[in-house]
Amino acid sequence: MTSTKHSFILTVVCPDTVGIVAAVAGYLTAEGHFIEESTHFGDPDTGTFFMRTRFVPGDENFARSAFAAGFGEIGSRFGMDWHLYDTRILPRVLVMVSKHDHCLNDLLYRYRTGALRMAIPAIVSNHMDLAGLASWHKVPYFHIPVTPESKAAAEARLLEIAEDTRADLIVLARYMQILSPALCQKYPGRVINIHHSFLPGFKGARPYHEAHRRGVKLIGATAHYVTADLDEGPIIEQTVERADHTMSPEDLAAIGRDVESITLARAVKLHLDHRVFANGQKTVVLR
Amino acid sequence: MTSTKHSFILTVVCPDTVGIVAAVAGYLTAEGHFIEESTHFGDPDTGTFFMRTRFVPGDENFARSAFAAGFGEIGSRFGMDWHLYDTRILPRVLVMVSKHDHCLNDLLYRYRTGALRMAIPAIVSNHMDLAGLASWHKVPYFHIPVTPESKAAAEARLLEIAEDTRADLIVLARYMQILSPALCQKYPGRVINIHHSFLPGFKGARPYHEAHRRGVKLIGATAHYVTADLDEGPIIEQTVERADHTMSPEDLAAIGRDVESITLARAVKLHLDHRVFANGQKTVVLR
Amino acid sequence: MTSTKHSFILTVVCPDTVGIVAAVAGYLTAEGHFIEESTHFGDPDTGTFFMRTRFVPGDENFARSAFAAGFGEIGSRFGMDWHLYDTRILPRVLVMVSKHDHCLNDLLYRYRTGALRMAIPAIVSNHMDLAGLASWHKVPYFHIPVTPESKAAAEARLLEIAEDTRADLIVLARYMQILSPALCQKYPGRVINIHHSFLPGFKGARPYHEAHRRGVKLIGATAHYVTADLDEGPIIEQTVERADHTMSPEDLAAIGRDVESITLARAVKLHLDHRVFANGQKTVVLR
Amino acid sequence: MTSTKHSFILTVVCPDTVGIVAAVAGYLTAEGHFIEESTHFGDPDTGTFFMRTRFVPGDENFARSAFAAGFGEIGSRFGMDWHLYDTRILPRVLVMVSKHDHCLNDLLYRYRTGALRMAIPAIVSNHMDLAGLASWHKVPYFHIPVTPESKAAAEARLLEIAEDTRADLIVLARYMQILSPALCQKYPGRVINIHHSFLPGFKGARPYHEAHRRGVKLIGATAHYVTADLDEGPIIEQTVERADHTMSPEDLAAIGRDVESITLARAVKLHLDHRVFANGQKTVVLR
Repeated sequence: MTSTKHSFILTVVCPDTVGIVAAVAGYLTAEGHFIEESTHFGDPDTGTFFMRTRFVPGDENFARSAFAAGFGEIGSRFGMDWHLYDTRILPRVLVMVSKHDHCLNDLLYRYRTGALRMAIPAIVSNHMDLAGLASWHKVPYFHIPVTPESKAAAEARLLEIAEDTRADLIVLARYMQILSPALCQKYPGRVINIHHSFLPGFKGARPYHEAHRRGVKLIGATAHYVTADLDEGPIIEQTVERADHTMSPEDLAAIGRDVESITLARAVKLHLDHRVFANGQKTVVLR
Repeated sequence: MTSTKHSFILTVVCPDTVGIVAAVAGYLTAEGHFIEESTHFGDPDTGTFFMRTRFVPGDENFARSAFAAGFGEIGSRFGMDWHLYDTRILPRVLVMVSKHDHCLNDLLYRYRTGALRMAIPAIVSNHMDLAGLASWHKVPYFHIPVTPESKAAAEARLLEIAEDTRADLIVLARYMQILSPALCQKYPGRVINIHHSFLPGFKGARPYHEAHRRGVKLIGATAHYVTADLDEGPIIEQTVERADHTMSPEDLAAIGRDVESITLARAVKLHLDHRVFANGQKTVVLR
Repeated sequence: MTSTKHSFILTVVCPDTVGIVAAVAGYLTAEGHFIEESTHFGDPDTGTFFMRTRFVPGDENFARSAFAAGFGEIGSRFGMDWHLYDTRILPRVLVMVSKHDHCLNDLLYRYRTGALRMAIPAIVSNHMDLAGLASWHKVPYFHIPVTPESKAAAEARLLEIAEDTRADLIVLARYMQILSPALCQKYPGRVINIHHSFLPGFKGARPYHEAHRRGVKLIGATAHYVTADLDEGPIIEQTVERADHTMSPEDLAAIGRDVESITLARAVKLHLDHRVFANGQKTVVLR
Repeated sequence: MTSTKHSFILTVVCPDTVGIVAAVAGYLTAEGHFIEESTHFGDPDTGTFFMRTRFVPGDENFARSAFAAGFGEIGSRFGMDWHLYDTRILPRVLVMVSKHDHCLNDLLYRYRTGALRMAIPAIVSNHMDLAGLASWHKVPYFHIPVTPESKAAAEARLLEIAEDTRADLIVLARYMQILSPALCQKYPGRVINIHHSFLPGFKGARPYHEAHRRGVKLIGATAHYVTADLDEGPIIEQTVERADHTMSPEDLAAIGRDVESITLARAVKLHLDHRVFANGQKTVVLR
């Protein structure tokens, strides 16, 4: 009955009210589709409803256009922002890095082995350091240096690449430049950053030094969507690891590299599975 | 729209097929009920479908009998084993202990503060040691000594108490006697035991000594439903904590007490929330 | 050879230099004492050396005065701040609470069962709510109400009780009043507070509401020494637990209660074992 | 005073008695060496004493031969099995793999970035699949196919390579062949294997399928020294990750890959830091 072949994922966001689950499930069933997974959440604070449903179409020749024609009426009735994804089509992920390679190495490994089901049309960096790693994985590497003078031009170039590669998602895998508000707004909920601390503690550029100075007993990493408000974007995933008094800032950073890699990988996987919804300054993650 | 007042929980188990979610959600919506939470799982291995739905009735005078009349047809059509629970009615939990008091102390604390929403009509023990603790919490304490000769009579007495107190659930909070297969079968999926190891490792009576002998680096606890097959019942929850070479069996047991308490408390809470379904030798836990 | 009977613990803090470990170990051995455990740490940032040694005296009639006479020369030579503790003598812990009882319940359970080896000469509270819990454990309960007008008098009374009970340690087990700088300085490194967040995130009075607003995916608790600088005292222990979007501030607080209890219990145990040393704004924890 | 340059590590194993710490620390101090770290453990069960000391020599031209001459008397007096390691000399690690590449990829990343300070003179595999990965990291790759007929010859070849490369440590990074007892005994405490389960649960070849069948709620990995007794070697490190009913054996294996990689990396790091001592069927890990 259940199958992983040819699954589609439907996501729905709309004002919360009576009858949404019934309407969606009813439509899918009437069309002969088999629901494999379905989770939803109604946020009592904002009155917003979030839903994710994975189903196997009843018909092998199922087309998204036909679905839109039929489901459109329900979408309109409930005021839905809905999307349908074909799981056979790989999302296109643009990865941005600077000099640190631990997150990139981890992402490329998961990309190469299929643990993260995605295409990587390009890696962009403001440095040349990681070109060899990209090359070994046969991913085009774009070097866009950034200086105070060239920042605007560099962003324009980055935007071009994002558009040319039709990126569905931009992942900042320790990209050490701040994106402009304009760029953030162009890809809302579609840029993921890994911050090397357990937010909201230790915002800013040198969190491991701050953690060392403060003497914390756990260090962490936070994967979040990028918004114009630095380090305040909606949090997708957080992880921590134990630390102690013997550790220098460099030791904390070394442990942090493992924590950052796994946290970013989990966040990207959740996003690619269409499980993450921005909800104001927060996220809803439907597992 | 959402409210925690007057919620009902509907659980469904039936053969997996197309249309179950739609049928359930459709019925609830048609009756004017508001779905707060709904999760389900179809097990591809056994072809069994599990569903848990929490809803607020549309009508304040909503009655379970009326629901049965209306929903019965759907239940029959899909071959459902379904149950409806009124969250205002506290489940009745019979707690059994021997001499160790850490799990009992933890359960009673959560009972007293309402963290675990349950009634405890009785505590049963084969020893008198914990009578004072029960008394302070104003819970009746039944002392049923067990000797090889009296085992059958003791079990008969226990069964009587379970029936007299109309126990919905029996929790073995470090009860150091093995229940007879007959008793296990009388309360299938309704007796929870805490085993003081990370099953399937270290079955048997002295797991901390075994863990010490083997030199493991993590020790754990396992909460499971009791079946006739000792320590092989469906696992509900497991937790671990770090251990090292400096620890004696007594040190491991001391750490283990915290792990056992929290693991049992979580399993009991999941059960009382009607989130746990036995599925052969395993469980489905719908969060 | 090893024995847990009649152990003594020696703690040493002094400027770091060559020969400290040799001098201490040499003296103990020359006197016929058997070293069971010994750990040390030299902080490269402050040039301070910390050491903790547990030993079994060679002579059953070993006296602290005789030790002082012999070890005093070494202490002077290295400029040591050293202390010798007889593990048979229970430290005296004054516990302060307000209305929340989860930390108190946990501490009293560990006190009653000997998991925390301490005496509790008194519980002090600005409310009457927890008097019954104290009474059942046969611990005197002092009710000292605090109002803006009575704050100074209340602190004076508290200080009197601390002195009368000869408290070695004061534990703020969710005591919701801020201690005056004067009192903090009177008991430096001897007042432990449990803060209900993962510091340095969410300082202040309502951390679970802040955590909810920010949408964090982990919530935590921090046990720290109290200093005049609120929520900035040296951190002893931190723990986290997973959270998600479905949880209300009240749900976060409920999970937080378990995290707070275990974190505070661990910090108190580390302190009572003489493993924690204040080191400026940080701690050294010798395990 | 403290420095990470030119550190040496001294390890000591001997029968436990009075005066060992004093003798070692006294000798090092008398020679003008500065002790950076020192930890020890006396096992009450076996009467064996374990010690690890890291020190900076007082003299830049410090030679191991001079140390042996001076320390030899102490070693003899206490019956010590002692070793002195120069931290500037990289240990030589032979890595063995089959077809799974997650552990190898992780080890090579840590090797390349210096997170694991080691030389890898060769990678040995019974398959050709991972030759490209080795090649990119410029590590020689030896393909030694194993069939029932060729097993003895293959082992002889492996032994030759281990000797030719003067391997200090052999790491089985998901090498799916069982080593002969003869080979195990040739490298006692010097062959580390990663077993893809939380031992002692799920020994054998298909642990994720077993874990799925049993419905465990946590899956784990165990890094251990290889002995002739399969899966019973002394455990160095263990890690777990949460699992649930929705996961297929393949899903468990996917999560398991991360757990295996991190567990093996930690165990190798502990070993290379000379922190791990075999102690009968167990290990002592001096942190």
